[in-house]
Amino acid sequence: MSRLELGVCYYPEQWDKSQWRDDAKRMVDMGLDWVRIAEFTWGLIEPERGRFEWGWLDEVIGILGDAGLRVMMSTPTAAPPKWLVDDCPEILPVGPDGRVRGFGSRRHYCFSSDIYLTEARRITTEYARRYGENPFVRAWQIDNEYNDHDTVLSYSNAARTGFRRWLQDRYGTIEALNRTWGTVFWGSLYSDFDQIELPISLVASPNPTHALDFARYSSDRVRDFNRAQADILRRFAPGRDITHNFMAGSFEFDHHAVAADLDVVGFDSYPLGNLLGSSLSDEDKRRYLRTGAPDYQGFHCDLYRSQGRGRMWVLEQQPGPVDWAEKNPSPADGMVRLWTWAAFAHGAQAVMFFRWRQAKFAQEQFHTALLRSDGSPDQAALELAQVAKERAALPEVTRQKAAVAILLDYESIWAADILPHDDAFPNAGIFRVWYAGLRALGVDLDFVGPDDDLTGYSLIVLPQNMIISPDLAKRLHHSQAKLLIGARAGSKTVDMWTPENLAPGELADLAGIKVIRVESLPDLAGESVSLESTGTFDFKGWREVIETENQVIAHFVSAYRAGSPAIVQSDRAMYLAMIPNGPLLRAILIKALTWAGLPIRECGPDLRVTQRGDLGFGFNFGAAAQVLPDDENRQYIVGTSEIPSYGVSVWKWK
Amino acid sequence: MSRLELGVCYYPEQWDKSQWRDDAKRMVDMGLDWVRIAEFTWGLIEPERGRFEWGWLDEVIGILGDAGLRVMMSTPTAAPPKWLVDDCPEILPVGPDGRVRGFGSRRHYCFSSDIYLTEARRITTEYARRYGENPFVRAWQIDNEYNDHDTVLSYSNAARTGFRRWLQDRYGTIEALNRTWGTVFWGSLYSDFDQIELPISLVASPNPTHALDFARYSSDRVRDFNRAQADILRRFAPGRDITHNFMAGSFEFDHHAVAADLDVVGFDSYPLGNLLGSSLSDEDKRRYLRTGAPDYQGFHCDLYRSQGRGRMWVLEQQPGPVDWAEKNPSPADGMVRLWTWAAFAHGAQAVMFFRWRQAKFAQEQFHTALLRSDGSPDQAALELAQVAKERAALPEVTRQKAAVAILLDYESIWAADILPHDDAFPNAGIFRVWYAGLRALGVDLDFVGPDDDLTGYSLIVLPQNMIISPDLAKRLHHSQAKLLIGARAGSKTVDMWTPENLAPGELADLAGIKVIRVESLPDLAGESVSLESTGTFDFKGWREVIETENQVIAHFVSAYRAGSPAIVQSDRAMYLAMIPNGPLLRAILIKALTWAGLPIRECGPDLRVTQRGDLGFGFNFGAAAQVLPDDENRQYIVGTSEIPSYGVSVWKWK
Amino acid sequence: MSRLELGVCYYPEQWDKSQWRDDAKRMVDMGLDWVRIAEFTWGLIEPERGRFEWGWLDEVIGILGDAGLRVMMSTPTAAPPKWLVDDCPEILPVGPDGRVRGFGSRRHYCFSSDIYLTEARRITTEYARRYGENPFVRAWQIDNEYNDHDTVLSYSNAARTGFRRWLQDRYGTIEALNRTWGTVFWGSLYSDFDQIELPISLVASPNPTHALDFARYSSDRVRDFNRAQADILRRFAPGRDITHNFMAGSFEFDHHAVAADLDVVGFDSYPLGNLLGSSLSDEDKRRYLRTGAPDYQGFHCDLYRSQGRGRMWVLEQQPGPVDWAEKNPSPADGMVRLWTWAAFAHGAQAVMFFRWRQAKFAQEQFHTALLRSDGSPDQAALELAQVAKERAALPEVTRQKAAVAILLDYESIWAADILPHDDAFPNAGIFRVWYAGLRALGVDLDFVGPDDDLTGYSLIVLPQNMIISPDLAKRLHHSQAKLLIGARAGSKTVDMWTPENLAPGELADLAGIKVIRVESLPDLAGESVSLESTGTFDFKGWREVIETENQVIAHFVSAYRAGSPAIVQSDRAMYLAMIPNGPLLRAILIKALTWAGLPIRECGPDLRVTQRGDLGFGFNFGAAAQVLPDDENRQYIVGTSEIPSYGVSVWKWK
Repeated sequence: MSRLELGVCYYPEQWDKSQWRDDAKRMVDMGLDWVRIAEFTWGLIEPERGRFEWGWLDEVIGILGDAGLRVMMSTPTAAPPKWLVDDCPEILPVGPDGRVRGFGSRRHYCFSSDIYLTEARRITTEYARRYGENPFVRAWQIDNEYNDHDTVLSYSNAARTGFRRWLQDRYGTIEALNRTWGTVFWGSLYSDFDQIELPISLVASPNPTHALDFARYSSDRVRDFNRAQADILRRFAPGRDITHNFMAGSFEFDHHAVAADLDVVGFDSYPLGNLLGSSLSDEDKRRYLRTGAPDYQGFHCDLYRSQGRGRMWVLEQQPGPVDWAEKNPSPADGMVRLWTWAAFAHGAQAVMFFRWRQAKFAQEQFHTALLRSDGSPDQAALELAQVAKERAALPEVTRQKAAVAILLDYESIWAADILPHDDAFPNAGIFRVWYAGLRALGVDLDFVGPDDDLTGYSLIVLPQNMIISPDLAKRLHHSQAKLLIGARAGSKTVDMWTPENLAPGELADLAGIKVIRVESLPDLAGESVSLESTGTFDFKGWREVIETENQVIAHFVSAYRAGSPAIVQSDRAMYLAMIPNGPLLRAILIKALTWAGLPIRECGPDLRVTQRGDLGFGFNFGAAAQVLPDDENRQYIVGTSEIPSYGVSVWKWK
Repeated sequence: MSRLELGVCYYPEQWDKSQWRDDAKRMVDMGLDWVRIAEFTWGLIEPERGRFEWGWLDEVIGILGDAGLRVMMSTPTAAPPKWLVDDCPEILPVGPDGRVRGFGSRRHYCFSSDIYLTEARRITTEYARRYGENPFVRAWQIDNEYNDHDTVLSYSNAARTGFRRWLQDRYGTIEALNRTWGTVFWGSLYSDFDQIELPISLVASPNPTHALDFARYSSDRVRDFNRAQADILRRFAPGRDITHNFMAGSFEFDHHAVAADLDVVGFDSYPLGNLLGSSLSDEDKRRYLRTGAPDYQGFHCDLYRSQGRGRMWVLEQQPGPVDWAEKNPSPADGMVRLWTWAAFAHGAQAVMFFRWRQAKFAQEQFHTALLRSDGSPDQAALELAQVAKERAALPEVTRQKAAVAILLDYESIWAADILPHDDAFPNAGIFRVWYAGLRALGVDLDFVGPDDDLTGYSLIVLPQNMIISPDLAKRLHHSQAKLLIGARAGSKTVDMWTPENLAPGELADLAGIKVIRVESLPDLAGESVSLESTGTFDFKGWREVIETENQVIAHFVSAYRAGSPAIVQSDRAMYLAMIPNGPLLRAILIKALTWAGLPIRECGPDLRVTQRGDLGFGFNFGAAAQVLPDDENRQYIVGTSEIPSYGVSVWKWK
Repeated sequence: MSRLELGVCYYPEQWDKSQWRDDAKRMVDMGLDWVRIAEFTWGLIEPERGRFEWGWLDEVIGILGDAGLRVMMSTPTAAPPKWLVDDCPEILPVGPDGRVRGFGSRRHYCFSSDIYLTEARRITTEYARRYGENPFVRAWQIDNEYNDHDTVLSYSNAARTGFRRWLQDRYGTIEALNRTWGTVFWGSLYSDFDQIELPISLVASPNPTHALDFARYSSDRVRDFNRAQADILRRFAPGRDITHNFMAGSFEFDHHAVAADLDVVGFDSYPLGNLLGSSLSDEDKRRYLRTGAPDYQGFHCDLYRSQGRGRMWVLEQQPGPVDWAEKNPSPADGMVRLWTWAAFAHGAQAVMFFRWRQAKFAQEQFHTALLRSDGSPDQAALELAQVAKERAALPEVTRQKAAVAILLDYESIWAADILPHDDAFPNAGIFRVWYAGLRALGVDLDFVGPDDDLTGYSLIVLPQNMIISPDLAKRLHHSQAKLLIGARAGSKTVDMWTPENLAPGELADLAGIKVIRVESLPDLAGESVSLESTGTFDFKGWREVIETENQVIAHFVSAYRAGSPAIVQSDRAMYLAMIPNGPLLRAILIKALTWAGLPIRECGPDLRVTQRGDLGFGFNFGAAAQVLPDDENRQYIVGTSEIPSYGVSVWKWK
């Protein structure tokens, strides 16, 4: 399917049933195709163990379906009911402070609890049996936002037991574990798997392989929890798409692994909600205060589309101010339309809004919606209706494979958090900064995971991929792509050791360098990089001393080892001995793209362009109009060559 | 009584008894009328259960009374003895981290503990029986600073049990609670009151009605604890005034409710101690470093005088550097006199100093006093003696009702903390900023609570009153006063819901507007307000989009919806769609006062003037002298028309 | 011994045994004399209770000794094995949050655990029996870095029991404790030692004598733990030097007391690791980013040499970037050599590097070493080899007694932390600032503790010594030295009371002043000091109002009590009524040195000079060359009169 489908999240249980029919009609009139329901309904459907109250939900589905809406049903496992918590308090999660997190909000369960897994299977089976073949129910969302409120890592007794079992499976013998973790260090040898504790509440930092294994274990628990429900849904709901709503900016579990069990990868997109807490400069935060960062929507769409093997939905789109960020400004008028088009341009098959009508009680009262709590249409409803009309002229298009891919793997992000060498290391943020740098040069992007097919790309970039397995290195080699390799790449083995040949380990041949020292620098250090025939640029934070016999195309400018290599270029790879940002990153990306024979379209800070099949898209995140270059091959479907402030143009390439 | 009475807090138990007689004589010689004693003496009086050592306290009271001093006795419940804690460890409070707070300082009890309430009643009865009719004991202070060290909210098992009982009383049925809390949200329904937990240690934020009810419950426990002692004292100490020392800047329980059970509302005033932690600018902190904010004393005097139905005492006045703020500077010479006169001007019947002689051991050694620890007189003693002489010429005067009142209700402050929409919302601080803005324009002020009589005022201001009940709205309507209504007013019902008609809910008719969107903005947003025929002013933090058919007298200047209404004026009310501060607030207040037909006396940053009956007062908080306008009707009792730096003038209006 | 000896920390257990022989040979070739081993080997040597695996360690010692290296053996008590923790979980320490700190890193034991003390004695006896008379083992290090990871204070049940016992010993009766603590304050009297709790998790601040006694108790436990092992080693390892590695910047226990049980005081020196977290200005942090603060090495060498009665070793010297600071920059090339020479100049007998080869697994992978993890020599190896050659020409020299001593006592530092009067008081840092100020004037320094011999000094400085006992005051009097006394000196008795005669208590006669008020000021206060015939200087933070009949040589410039005495000079003492820093401190030190008849050699920010016996040393911490004054009496052994950037000159005085 490649039309732009629209939808909304709906909580009929929060409104008088007399409103349901009218709500359904208004949804259809607004141009909506989808309605997502029921993701926190366990306590309503099963008010006590074994007693089910399906009637109201049956009725809701009937009304929505009769009105012409496709229903996305949710499994309700993100909010177990109080009676279940009281029966089995051991299902509750435990925080890094060792304290149990109780009932009273949501996500109050531990992924390691076998009891909860059993209960989740049971209730999922009930929901799936009842609605699996309901003709109106066309898709299923499993649970809700797995890593919300930091619940991926739980430090419960169940987690300890599960972790020990997982380690036994991984290592077989305790001797193997001792060897791999290097427990000879600080004399911390184990003689039995049952001696292993969770890596919290220690005197000093934990063994890094211990910490990495716990991150892996916790990620596996999420994958298993999701898979258990997916298996049930596949059995009882044949032909329906199964999805889950990932979050933006979330790296706590391996999304590639969970995505493998989904038909469509969904995610929740709140461009303003995530702006002020980001690492952008104050100047950029002011600039994008009411638009969100221009590459926020694109980054997550491209990432999750790649994980979804081309199938991606925005399951919650921001409609106005949210209620959970440190400050919650309004989007500029027009942005809801812009974000919706941007999602489509980057490959979304559907965009659903959170939520239909603003709540008038409980936690999320300040979260805006399509309608205000009094039922009057809010700004998002107007913009959504506009998109619903505009999409009519769209041809069928599929997002094409890009020429450039970013390698993103979750283990490297965990590894960098575990051994940062720097108290404020950006880690995951580096991927976003590189993505934005490439997008500002007009480059369309895919993401690849460590197990994905790497062939067919002209350029693969590795912003900060600490863990490179021998197999991955081999496939990078065989990919034939040029590689742009950021600092720290390959600096740890999969067991979290320093490679025998030092960093970049498995990439040594490709990169043609050896890292003989690393250092982290405070911002006050004030060092810079002189890039061949380009200029001198500041950098911050991380610097490597490298040895190479290849061409050095940039040098460090510093009182310390002035002139030591900052960028080295070999046949296949460009290696960066620092973490670039701003103008330095831009200059490097231009060099790399040129080297890879790829075109550059300068977009500046506010304009973004992309393509989906035959369609071209231009988005203006700025307060001033932007004019696209004259091009006779463009036939405009939406807008013109001059994109007004916060506006969108869509054209067909002749 | 309307003379200025003076007093001191005295800890005879900390000094050799050989000093007591001399201390008493020096107090009288200094001009003191009152001496407060005994508020931490439980462990001394009852060293083990049932064994009482009254002798030394009998002797102290005799010595003080014989010397001519009136004694204020305290109940000792702020510091239960160790043997009681060991007998009943369940009386200890529990912090928001779930950890018990132990013995070793003070206030180590939980307001929810029925055991402790019983013990508090028992010891109060003992004290009251012994000294209730003692002719020297003329007043009683109950306990000490209820909310000090954040002990109003305790998360003990007793609190949980008590809260459940309180909820049962409030709601009757669990269905009613589910309905009112909106537990259908996130499927968090309860089937029994015994399922309800305290709103801490959750995965995400608690249900806001749950949180508000816990604040109400906790406040009721303070009221009940205070009332239990007041009832005993009324029985055994007939004719004696009963008081408690509230703290400045404290909003954790409903002070109106506690004040209703007191004869006189007391409070503790530390103008420097609370300066550096305030939200003042660094420039103002430097300016007032050695004076305290000019309106600190006035705000609390006016607030607590209003709550005390005209009867208010300063029970602890700062005498020099304190020991508990982040930094503890000296007051400028003269400030102790100034503060004392300011308290009187704002309605105080007595001002008592903390403390007689600086401690030479234990926690508060750095807290200055009237005397140094070696017995020599410190600066405060000199200034106090001066006031004692100056007061001789005073006529009897009573503080008159003001023309302007500030509506302050504690539930709105809790509500704003629970649903802030902004991570740094000033909430309670807004009331202080408005008070200071009005005082700088020479306006005398009363405070009114939501149940108080509202008639007779020309102007009532609502800085941020989120919860407006139907009854309050009706009484505001009938008051005939003009209303200056700050943003968020009426935005929640008493059940913490969004009003059916949106904000300002019950005030919709009076205000003549509807709030269709709110947003919180970071400081870097840089938006402003253009006020009709006045100018353009910055504002920060909060902005509302409103609809109105009334007169718009100010508009927003912004890239977002430029020109949308910022201030709307109807027949009775002026509504502000933002939170003003600094020059914008000043301009608005001038507009509102003029509109209400009230005079404005520009005072600038350092001068403050006020009236009590026939007396006029001028206070100079600045380093330069201030000259009062020539006025033949002034007859100076203290000072002249030129007020020196840190000086005071008092005159009689002819 | 007064040659410069060199050594290294070695972890043979982390490398294949096939490397050991080659490692030993390379050490000898590099010029190393010492090799420290085995400090975390308990779990390897005794993998289960009573089963010992000595073979590999026997072999290591044989190889090292045969190669010509002297072995420093360590007792392994800093890392008890998992089986012991599982057997006796009560040996684990408890943090100030009340949570047990578990196994999985190091230092996971509580100094108060009698069980652990018994186990530590047992394993120490085993090690000592096996290697005590081994001819290659020439020295012993006890445990490792006692106060690392904040483990001196533990809040376990064992600590509570031990503290009660300790109090009983100290006070005899509970009445004496009540009297000394002043528990009459806040009515917190005890009737039995078993009622006393640890001073954490209270509602408000603890009684300061309670807190000070707990600091003393905890310090005593460290002393006892160390002494227990020292006693065993003295018995089984006759003639071997016993040491422990203190940390830099650590004041949590009384190092004088522990040092008394050691033959040589060792310490660990990481000049860059401790720079960014220090209180230096950002400008200085940038200046010294790659050198460390110029007086870091000197301060700790002089302090620990004084405690070691002339015998001091650097047991761990930084070789390159470390891995544990907030940022970890590289030292400038040359600094490893400079630090080594500086340690020698300040009295070190040996300098040992941490560590031989960079780890390739576990926690400290990013910590550099003499060799990289692949075995190639890193920068430190090159510089160390240079020093090894340069030392050949050295004569035997002993560091002479200095003319100036700094009085440093640990109880005063604890006292200042317990009753700071200021939320950001520098306390221990003041000693470092004064030291640096004196060193920049070319002054060589000793440190003296409160029980040390004070005679023979021309000037004794007391930067901030709150607790001055009568005996210490008497010995200061008899010392005949001039005294430079910083604010707060003598302001508390040993029982943490305000002295009867107010501050400076026992120093009143010597100082000739009385402190009648103290205040702490925020940085924005902007006050200054006018120093007689010198100038006006800013100061920050602390100010005292003093009375004196002596000569006032500096006054405060302030809107508050302008002209009040800032510095008073009597016959024997100069008293400072503020805490000076920067230019004010410099001017005061020049005045005091001149007054004491001592020479001043201006060194500026980057040059440092010192003497050891006949040898003179110049160190250049700056990026520009420094020229020493022409002096015919200098005969250069290393370098010349022009010291290059990061360079060293050593000369002999003819």
